[in-house]
Order: sequence, then C-alpha cells, then structure tokens
Amino acid sequence: MKLPSAAVAGSLAARQAIDYNSAPPNLSTLANASLFDTWRPRAHVLPPFGHIGDPCMHYTDPETGLFHVGWLYSGAAGATTDDLVTYHDLNPNGGQFILPGGKNDPLFVFDGSVIPSGIDGKPTLFYTSVSYLPIQWTVAYVRGSETQSLAVSYDSGRNFTKLEQGPVIPSPPFAVNVTGFRDPFVFQNNQLDALLDSAPGTWYAVISGGVHGEGPSEFLYRQHDPDFQYWEELGQWWHEPANSSWGNGDWAGRWGYNFEVANVFSVDDEGYNNEGEVFTTIGAEWSLDPIVPQVSDFREMLWAAGKVSRENGQVKFTPTMAGYLDCGKSAYAAAGKELPASSVASQKSGAPDRFITYVWLTGDFYGTANFPTPQQNWTGALLLPRELSVGNIHDVVNNELVHETGSWRVASECSGVTELTTLKQVIAREALAALTSGKSFTEAGRKLDSAGVVPFERVPESKFHVITASLSFPKGSRGSDLRAGFQILSSEHESTTIYYQFSNESIIIDRTNTSAAARTTDGIDSRNEAGPLRLFDLLRDGEEQIETLDLTIVVDNSIVEVHANDRFAVSTWARSWYAGSREIRFFHDGEGEVTFGNVTVYEGLYDAWPDRSA
Amino acid sequence: MKLPSAAVAGSLAARQAIDYNSAPPNLSTLANASLFDTWRPRAHVLPPFGHIGDPCMHYTDPETGLFHVGWLYSGAAGATTDDLVTYHDLNPNGGQFILPGGKNDPLFVFDGSVIPSGIDGKPTLFYTSVSYLPIQWTVAYVRGSETQSLAVSYDSGRNFTKLEQGPVIPSPPFAVNVTGFRDPFVFQNNQLDALLDSAPGTWYAVISGGVHGEGPSEFLYRQHDPDFQYWEELGQWWHEPANSSWGNGDWAGRWGYNFEVANVFSVDDEGYNNEGEVFTTIGAEWSLDPIVPQVSDFREMLWAAGKVSRENGQVKFTPTMAGYLDCGKSAYAAAGKELPASSVASQKSGAPDRFITYVWLTGDFYGTANFPTPQQNWTGALLLPRELSVGNIHDVVNNELVHETGSWRVASECSGVTELTTLKQVIAREALAALTSGKSFTEAGRKLDSAGVVPFERVPESKFHVITASLSFPKGSRGSDLRAGFQILSSEHESTTIYYQFSNESIIIDRTNTSAAARTTDGIDSRNEAGPLRLFDLLRDGEEQIETLDLTIVVDNSIVEVHANDRFAVSTWARSWYAGSREIRFFHDGEGEVTFGNVTVYEGLYDAWPDRSA
Repeated sequence: MKLPSAAVAGSLAARQAIDYNSAPPNLSTLANASLFDTWRPRAHVLPPFGHIGDPCMHYTDPETGLFHVGWLYSGAAGATTDDLVTYHDLNPNGGQFILPGGKNDPLFVFDGSVIPSGIDGKPTLFYTSVSYLPIQWTVAYVRGSETQSLAVSYDSGRNFTKLEQGPVIPSPPFAVNVTGFRDPFVFQNNQLDALLDSAPGTWYAVISGGVHGEGPSEFLYRQHDPDFQYWEELGQWWHEPANSSWGNGDWAGRWGYNFEVANVFSVDDEGYNNEGEVFTTIGAEWSLDPIVPQVSDFREMLWAAGKVSRENGQVKFTPTMAGYLDCGKSAYAAAGKELPASSVASQKSGAPDRFITYVWLTGDFYGTANFPTPQQNWTGALLLPRELSVGNIHDVVNNELVHETGSWRVASECSGVTELTTLKQVIAREALAALTSGKSFTEAGRKLDSAGVVPFERVPESKFHVITASLSFPKGSRGSDLRAGFQILSSEHESTTIYYQFSNESIIIDRTNTSAAARTTDGIDSRNEAGPLRLFDLLRDGEEQIETLDLTIVVDNSIVEVHANDRFAVSTWARSWYAGSREIRFFHDGEGEVTFGNVTVYEGLYDAWPDRSA
Repeated sequence: MKLPSAAVAGSLAARQAIDYNSAPPNLSTLANASLFDTWRPRAHVLPPFGHIGDPCMHYTDPETGLFHVGWLYSGAAGATTDDLVTYHDLNPNGGQFILPGGKNDPLFVFDGSVIPSGIDGKPTLFYTSVSYLPIQWTVAYVRGSETQSLAVSYDSGRNFTKLEQGPVIPSPPFAVNVTGFRDPFVFQNNQLDALLDSAPGTWYAVISGGVHGEGPSEFLYRQHDPDFQYWEELGQWWHEPANSSWGNGDWAGRWGYNFEVANVFSVDDEGYNNEGEVFTTIGAEWSLDPIVPQVSDFREMLWAAGKVSRENGQVKFTPTMAGYLDCGKSAYAAAGKELPASSVASQKSGAPDRFITYVWLTGDFYGTANFPTPQQNWTGALLLPRELSVGNIHDVVNNELVHETGSWRVASECSGVTELTTLKQVIAREALAALTSGKSFTEAGRKLDSAGVVPFERVPESKFHVITASLSFPKGSRGSDLRAGFQILSSEHESTTIYYQFSNESIIIDRTNTSAAARTTDGIDSRNEAGPLRLFDLLRDGEEQIETLDLTIVVDNSIVEVHANDRFAVSTWARSWYAGSREIRFFHDGEGEVTFGNVTVYEGLYDAWPDRSA
C-alpha cells in the first residue's frame, strides 16, 4: 500500500491528541495516520510510510561500496547504508526503484536478487515478474503466473530498468506442476564450480517453490552466458517430501509444502567464504489438514546446512542440520547477501567478508490480521541485520542431548566431550555496537528461587532500549517446571514476559498482557511466541553444568527481538499502550533456582533514518 | 489495418466518378476508398475491407461440419463455408474472432492453428502471442518476443477466448539463438505415433523459425497432456544449412535463413491420409548479400515431401523432393488443414478426406510497395483453395530429365519407363466446378508457328473468367527459344502475357504492359512472375513426346492464377486499368510450333460473398 506523504503530515494534530495515560479506545475508530508514532520503531528498517513487504534485492554497489537494502513496496524500494546502522532512502519519500506494470510483470514485482557487476558491469536485478493470479501453494498453479526477468541500474540503484524483452527464465521445468516458482537468489560457489566443472565465478540461482503432491523444492540454475540471458536448469537440487520435517520437527519446524525466498550461501567461522560450508535459508509454507484453498496457516523461517554432492550427474543438497532463523510467527522472508570486507561498512568496522541477512516482520500477520493499518499508516518492518556464520559450541558433554537430529551437528567427539557446530547468528556488529553505545545502567545481579516478579530498581527512560543478561541454572533445572526471564514493557496495566522454559527447552514471549489495546481493538496479536533452544551440558573445569543462557533483548518500541547464545532468535510485536509501560522485571515461575548476572540496560537505541523528517 | 465500414459506404460517389475509359491519374491523389471496386476480386477470400494478413486457423467445426477459413486481420477474422465456394463472415463487418492486447500478446496475434476438438472438446487455437519487437531473421532475436498460447471458442468460432494463463510454449529450446519461432501448426500423424511410441491420435506441432548462423528449421513438439498445456520439445526435426537450396535451386528456390508458416500433413493419391506420405509447406525467407537489417528480400512459398525417421532417439524429416507451392513473388504464407469427408462441403461433393490449403497473395508486396491502399480500402487476398495430394506422372521416358534433384521423385523404374511422384495441387473441386459451371465459349484450336499474337474471336464480357487450354509442342521444342501462351486482360492499351518458355522450362507472367496505372502510380508492380515447370518426355503409344501443357488460368479482375498440369501454380496481381482490357490473345514467340487445343473460356466466376452488401 503506497500512501501519499501528505497523509502523514496532515495527521500531526491527530497524533498529538492521543492520551497514552488512559485506556485506549477502539483504535480503528481513530483518524487515519493518528497512530503513526505510537508503535513506530527507531532502529529498524522500514519505509517512511506504508506497507513493507519482503526484504530482497540487497547488494553492495561496486562503485560506491555502499550496501543497498531493498524491500518489496508496490514494486521495490530501498536504502543505502555505510555502517549497517543508519540508512538513506534511495529515492525521495522512499519511492520505488522498480515498479510493476511492464509486459513481463503486469501485476507484480516479486522478490529478486542482484548481481552487483552484471549486464554492462552494472547492478543487475533478477526478479520474479508476475502476470497472473492466484498464486499460492494451496491452489492450482496458473501457468506463467511467475517468470524470472532482468532489470539493470545505471544510476546507482535509484532505478532499475527492465530489459526490453521477455523473461530469462520463462517457466518452471517442463511439465512440473509447481506449487510456486519465485524469488530467484543468485550466488557464487566454489563447490558447485568444482562439481559441475563451471568456470570460476559462475553465477548460480535457486528459485523457490515445490511440486504439487510431492513437496517443497529449491530449483537450481546455472548462468549460461555472459549476458545472463540463459540459466541452465540443474533440477531440484533440494527437495523434501510434502509436509515432512527435519527429525521429529522439534528443532526446525516443518519443511511444509512450498519453499519461498530461499537463499544459498557459504560461510565459515569468520563469515562469508565461497569455499565454506553451504547453508540455505528458506521460508516454508504449510497448513493443518484439511488444507483450505488460499490459506497458508503457517510460515516458518528456517535454515539448513548441507552437503553438496553430485549423483547421477545431478547436483544435490542434503541437509546435515537445520533450525529456525527466527522463531517468531511474524518473522519470515529473510533475505541476505554477501557483504564484502571491501564495503564501506566493513572497512569502517574492520569486519571480514560477511553474509548479512534481514528478516521481515509482518505487521498484520501476512495480511490476515484486521490491524488498524490506516490509523498507523505503516505496517511491518525488517528485523536488525544479522551476521550468519558457522558457530561452534565447545566442551559439550557427550550425552543424549547431543545425539538428536537437531539444529546442530557433532563436529568432533573425543573422550566424552564433543564439539558441536551450528549456525551462528548475531546482530550485525556495527548495529550491536551502536545499540549498546549509549547511556546504560546495570541492574544488580540476583538469585531467585521462588515464583514471582521483581521490578528492576531503575526504569528505562523510554520504550527504546536493549537488555543484556546471563542466566545460570543449576544442573537440576533440566526437566523441571522452571521458567525464568524478564518482564518488559511493563506497568500496572501491561507486561510482556520473556522466559526460558525447561519443560520444553524453549524461549517464550508471553503477550497475554502485552497491550491494553488488544482488549479494544482487533488485530493486535496477543498469542505467545515460542522457539526451541537447547542449553547443553558443558564441561567447565571438570564439572558438568548447564550452558548459561545469554540474552540480548532489543526493545524498539513495539518490536522485540530476543537473541540467545549466538544461535537463537525470536522476534515479534509487543504493542504496549500506556506511556508508563517501560518497566523491566525479573521473572521466575515454577520450582528451582536461577541466577541473573551481567544485567545491563542500554537506553535510547539509535535513529536509523537521520534524513527523514518527523 | 482495420477501417470502419462507414469509410466504404461513404465513398460510393467517388467510386462511381472514375472513368475507366481514359488514362488513369496518379491514383494516390484520389479520394479514400474510391478504388474499392477497381480491382476487387469476386471469387477469392478476403475481408469486407482492410488489410488481410496470413491465412491461418482453419478448421472444420465438429459440431456443424462447416469449414472455417481464417486470416490475420489486426488479430484474426474468418468465415465459414459449406462448399468451398461461398463464404460467410463469422462476425459482422468481418470482425475479429481474436484480438491482440492480452497479457501474452500485448502487441500482436500471429498465425496459429486449431485443434477442432481441443480443450473441453471445443475448437482450440494454438497461436503465436507477440510481446516484443523487432521480429525478423535479419536482426537479433528479442527473447520472449514470440510465445505460443491457447484460446478456445465456445460460440462456434465467433470468438476465441484466451486462457487466463501464460503461454504453453513460453520460449524456443534452451539457449537456441533463433531467427524466428512462430506459427504453431498442429497435426496428427501415424508415422510419428509409431516412431515415438505415442498414443494414437496424439497431436504434434511444428513451429517455424531457424537459428542465427545456422539456417532455417522446423521445431517439432508433441502433445504432453489432455489439456494441451505442455508440448514436449522434440528438437529441430528439420533443419537446413543457411541459404542452402534443394539441389541446384532451380526447382525449389532457396531454403533461406528462416522458415515461416510451416504446415505438416500426410496425403496419398486420393487426399489426406494420416498414414500417407509426409509433406510440409513452408515460407522461406532470404536476402542477397549483404543482408540489410529489417529487410527480407525474398519470400518463397515452398513444399517438400520427406522421409520420417528416428536417429539417435531424435525424429528427423529428410526431404525426398521439393518445389514451389506457388511461384508468385506475392504468393506466400499458405495455410492448410485437413478437410474431412464428413464436412458439409465434402458430403455435398462426395470428396474424400482432403488437405486444403489457402495461399496468401500480398497486395502491397509485404508492406514494402507504396500501393495506393487508402484509395482501394483493402489490400491482399487469399488464392483459391487448393487440394494437395500425391500426384503421379506415368510413362515418363527414363532420360536425364528425370534424374535431377527436382520437384519430383522417381517412384518406379522399369525398362526405360519411369513413374514419377510429385505434389499434386489443383483448385479445390467444388471451386473449380463452380468457376466452370457458368456461361462459356470455346475458342477454336489452332497451330501457331511464327511469332505474334492472335486475338480470340470472342471477348469475354468481364474481367472475371477462367481460360482452360492444352498446349502441345513437338519434340524439337525442347531447348529452343519457343515461348507460347496467352495474352489476357488485353486491349490496345494493356496486356498481360502468360507463356511457357522452353529455354528455362518456365511459365512466365509478363506484366510489363499489364497496367496503365503503373505508369502514373507507385506501387503497381510490373515485374515479371516466373516459375519452373518441366514438361517431361512421355511414352505415348510407343512414341516419345513432350508432355502436354494443360493450363487453367483464373482471371478474377486483378488476381491471376495460372495452374498447370496439376502440379504447378503461379499467381499474381494484374491490375489492368481500362474497362476494355478484357481481350484474350494467343501468344507465340521464337522459333517452333505450338498447338492450342481445348480452349474454353468460362465467364463470370461466382460471388464468394453472397451475404455482403455492395
């Protein structure tokens, strides 16, 4: 939804008239744009107004070294960043760099990815051009609804000009009855070059989708010519049976029926490495039986690492471990890109080559929630940029906790101690440094051993802050009914509870009491968020102990990101209403003991959009 | 060009004001539509007004038994016939049954063909949907410019509704740099069924085109599913080297650089037979060196018969003989179709299954002639329907004339006498019967042995007539400079000379003196037409003699069709100006003797369009 900027400015009076010290009215009765500021984040990526769709089309411009972050926006719009902290709209009022309505894309421009030095050496966008509807895995596929086309930017990314020709991938493989065929993601990979005897630096692309009655797939393609006109079909290099799961499903949800927004990249312990371990991130779509046409009940944002091999001439990706990239039900459609050490941002921070991903956080539950969007005049955001790399967990006791089909794999075993490997995901170093560089205060550590909440001694000044803490649990906690964590955005009226729960090894965000507005207004989700995190038994100084839970909780007004142990994230909306709902509290429930340490609150976050006027 | 019908009616006064007994003015100075009647044919297929493009999309409606004849017309329009003589527009004012402007065909609808019982058992059009320009074999191919799409008629052919989906053949074979990829022609064939182990009755399609730097091709496809959604790529079942020719090029021109409008069908001595000999008709495009972008100097309407085989898994068509379907430089883009014995027309005439083709006669030399089209308000026509079958020439002396790579093949040889096989092509029996059923007169036979013209004793009443005659030549004529035939549309001011010329075994239409208007007005072509016809040596009662030349000359005002010996045709425009240019004359030139026999003139032709008002 693209709204004129006048709609924002014209609503200032209405915005100021709202009383955040009283119970809210039914918000859908308010004036348009009057809620613009109410839940607006500061440090996150989102357009000046309107609906943000999937992140995509990121790249580093070889000419400027600036990183371009893109997102769907009735077409696509984007911004540049030289530090992964502040962003600058590519076009005035956040306008689009590509619009639908051409011969290839009369209906929509869907996700794409960019070859930084493509046609004419210019940034070249490979995107899904949409001609027909409906498109969803739950209904019959309309032939030709999704094709893959090219556009080139000759003006530093402000506009991408479509080639005056038809799509470069005009259809799925012959007679394959796909559930979807979109979101081409380009990448380079030395392992594939070697297996396929490709010229070094050859580009590949995965297109996301699946096959009716068979299950989700990544369709692999190889660049065929220097003009990127032809992409050689290499088949479904990854396919999973319909609605199957990784292991018992505890650690990586379901593969579902259809993949979307697949990324493929290779990383090592440091970051991006063309010769590193191959990972993919995917959005998986599924529903409970009976499947209702046009309804996808679940969307899960997953990752998998895999072995790449060649069998009977065909290249195959076989997962070795898999997990959630973000466990939030509204967190989906992550799009990442190699960020080279030569980029301006990395030059400044001294970072090596990295793979940076942005996860989308839908603001209206994929369009299904009856959220008062006209009143807010924007919806959705991108989560903070994350660095993905290979993570290692050292000195893990070699017990049954390790030997499960999980979001980790055993890297080495020796005399009762193992080292595990997983996907490391952390907030991008520049963003995290900026988030934690402002005013801060430390809350004294403490040990709680009975159910209850204990308010912090100090209340943060605003709903913009970061909480970091380490929670330690005694050995006996495993299998207990212990829950421990924090209440945030709290007041006498409201609170959001974030806690680790041993009974199902999960981090929960309890939003039952998050928002007074949820009691008056439709579309303000108060369902729990939850995600699995196993705290392993570690050997420390010869003693077995439960891994410490290291939490980083980013509160950006209504957006809450919970990061744990460099390998877990759950993000969601927590739309507190009252101005006073800023308190933080220690939280304990059930039997057992928890020790809170290193509890720090960083105030204020940062303004990611210094160019934008209020 | 689609002009409103008012433009025709409003010009009646101007039409009547022209004096055809005086020398013409520059016709391009006349009022629009004032020349509407001047050269309008009676018995030929053409729209009520405007520009007719390629014939195509013919079929017999299984529900009515009517034969539908179609043609491009800013989209496509058509008519039905129950006798191959008279036609009835499908839509008022000759309106279209399909228009361009959809998502698949924003620019144009190009040629297609019809599966009579296709989707939902309804007539299903498989056509080329055009999205991008330029399209020509002389320039780089724009990817996606030509795709193949489906449309279905639920109202007896008055409208074909496009499927709400993308093309069913969205691109040429992978990475093939085609010169063209259009005009899908559907057919069934028992030989292909057997070679490819297809279900009986499987549909095939050839798509016409070629490969840059390699030459012209027919791309073969096979129906993959009952809904005609997928067409399996079977490769270039026929390919010829660029600008090569059949034999020395004397008998079938050049294969050129690009094929268009390919038809594939199988016939025997009687007519259409799914198990008969496989023939193809093609339009071949080529130019002299240096090739000028956007200019195709030559278009030739050819046929070939061939052997169908399977080599290394791929089906191949290998020509055994080839020739011109029509030698006229303006005759092109033939489109044929099986006409079953069960059709109304065939039921009435008692004809067996036939293959009927309509050749296009461009009125402005493929848009390059500066013809006064606005003054005429129509341009182009289809030639009379022709029946194609296997033809045999019996008792041919087995001399060097036979053993050449020509438009015939040796079917059998025994003791000095051979039987030759070729493509038999004759005016459809119903049309020929109707043309020759009216008032007629016989001109006394005669022998001429010196150069000169001899007027017929009787002058036909109009410029609408048929002349039939048999010309016999003594043995010594072969290799001489003898030319013999007729002058038609003649007067003191004008004449068109049609003759056989032994020196190069050709039938010539000399238009040097055809039209007084050519002297005042651009775009009235006065170049000669010519086509090769070998009169073989036949053994008759033990004597060798030159085969008799049997001519059927149809004069339909400005359209002249010259048919000879059931295997030759050359058609063109002869735009005589004077009302008196109706005389017919015997023509002799050079040394030698010719005997004219069976000379009959049939007056009046017939009105093919009884429903149309003047």
